[in-house]
Amino acid sequence: MKNIEIVGTGRYLPSRKIENWQLEQEEKLPKDYIYSRCGILTRYYVQEETIVEMAVRAAFDVIQKKKIDSSNIEMILVASTSSKEQMPGISFQVQKALQIPSCICLDVSAGCSGYINALDIARLYVSAGIATNALIIGVDVLSTITKEPATKILLADGAGATFIQATNEPKEYASLLESNGIEGDILTYQVGNYIQMNGKEIYRYAVTKTTKNIEELLEKTQKTIQDIDYFIPHQSNQKILDSMVKRLQIEKKKMISNIQNVGNTFCASIPIALDEVFDKIRPGQRILLSGYGGGLNTGSILLEK
Amino acid sequence: MKNIEIVGTGRYLPSRKIENWQLEQEEKLPKDYIYSRCGILTRYYVQEETIVEMAVRAAFDVIQKKKIDSSNIEMILVASTSSKEQMPGISFQVQKALQIPSCICLDVSAGCSGYINALDIARLYVSAGIATNALIIGVDVLSTITKEPATKILLADGAGATFIQATNEPKEYASLLESNGIEGDILTYQVGNYIQMNGKEIYRYAVTKTTKNIEELLEKTQKTIQDIDYFIPHQSNQKILDSMVKRLQIEKKKMISNIQNVGNTFCASIPIALDEVFDKIRPGQRILLSGYGGGLNTGSILLEK
Repeated sequence: MKNIEIVGTGRYLPSRKIENWQLEQEEKLPKDYIYSRCGILTRYYVQEETIVEMAVRAAFDVIQKKKIDSSNIEMILVASTSSKEQMPGISFQVQKALQIPSCICLDVSAGCSGYINALDIARLYVSAGIATNALIIGVDVLSTITKEPATKILLADGAGATFIQATNEPKEYASLLESNGIEGDILTYQVGNYIQMNGKEIYRYAVTKTTKNIEELLEKTQKTIQDIDYFIPHQSNQKILDSMVKRLQIEKKKMISNIQNVGNTFCASIPIALDEVFDKIRPGQRILLSGYGGGLNTGSILLEK
Repeated sequence: MKNIEIVGTGRYLPSRKIENWQLEQEEKLPKDYIYSRCGILTRYYVQEETIVEMAVRAAFDVIQKKKIDSSNIEMILVASTSSKEQMPGISFQVQKALQIPSCICLDVSAGCSGYINALDIARLYVSAGIATNALIIGVDVLSTITKEPATKILLADGAGATFIQATNEPKEYASLLESNGIEGDILTYQVGNYIQMNGKEIYRYAVTKTTKNIEELLEKTQKTIQDIDYFIPHQSNQKILDSMVKRLQIEKKKMISNIQNVGNTFCASIPIALDEVFDKIRPGQRILLSGYGGGLNTGSILLEK
């Protein structure tokens, strides 16, 4: 099994910036209600962008920043919960936009933490030597599929991209994925309907199950939380993030939180947050990515830059 | 990397059997038009079954036949092109129906050949020792998303399941996956619309690209077509299957075709066909599975029972 490294990251946020007062007015909520509930100040909604265009723009962002020759990309994986694109899937449309004649494409649906699953699959293909590299995209357009204030104040649109490749250097990688369909009813979405969320149950699940998942991953890899340099959890709600930090007893400055500026973008949230800090992370530093959400699905990845 | 073996297979066909005369009457087509065009005599449509129920029934079929203790299932992958189930995905709902408290769940969308992608992913998780076994389901409900006679006469509903596990015995496994998003416009489906198909182009693509994919896989594995005991291609259209047999110069009796009885069920077609012949296949015999379709996406897997 070959080692993998993250070569670069990219993101795309749509053009329409939405402030809390706009949503508070629209939903007849008291002033400062949103920030006090979830720590979000602004978020971005699509204007004319399609979900495919957002994925393509995030891909172009990493390709341009890292001067990647897109004709050499061997695998494209897209994670989304809001896609209607069945044939061709978003990954195939990204391949077309990048004019790649042949590679492996795949769309993945595994709830808000689908990006973790996509990255883990990509890693296996690269580690097994089937592909030498992979482009992983998380993208969601949630502004059009929320109806109730509880989801409207949280959810937003965005896309994040990560490019990995095989490396001969020693690089740690470990993951722990766990699904729990029995509790799947607490966060649901069927295409054509709206997202339904039981906020209290999600809070309980995220704080208990996800921290347990992280602790088990650390144990499996014989690491402690002190060995982690950057903790990048799914940006669900600032209150959940704060509770996770407390429970894990990780230094708060190690946790990356951008929810204040971009809201909760489901599958895009981890790759966007990773992109925001990627250049600061030094080679050899350890990153802990942790996703959780609809399914229910939880997954953490511990890897070295 | 551990070897994998197929333990068992299962299927579910919905209750409503549709004969050609019914469709020919409905679509005002001449008598015998359908059989002469695509070699289909009957197919099955859902009555009250949901796509999730179909997936669950296919899963139960293999579980019952092979006396699998479902509490030991470590991974569930579902491939579909017609799912609206984003959260929880179909795989998570199967997990719930089987009352499995924790495993890895994932829904995959990669066009008609998504089952090949799902099986290939499952194999990597089992080979890497992350899961000791995996349940792979291909399911599609196409009867409700066809509008034009060209797709109506071909497409149908079904579900197929395959259970694999790690084995210490030597078992061949090789795959070759290739996507071509640039030509993605010849077979399209966006949830909420209907399936659109350019039959002529699909024929050309299937016969040329898929046979080339198979030839490359055989070359990679230093096998010839004579080394294959069972060739199970995606059941798209009998004419396509006949042309593939000719081009590959494989003995016709080695090709498994059940399209006459069940139509083209997209992601379910290969696992249903595999289930129909699985008990006849002797240990050590070589099976070649070959998928192709929307995306465009092509993938072949050569494996040993």
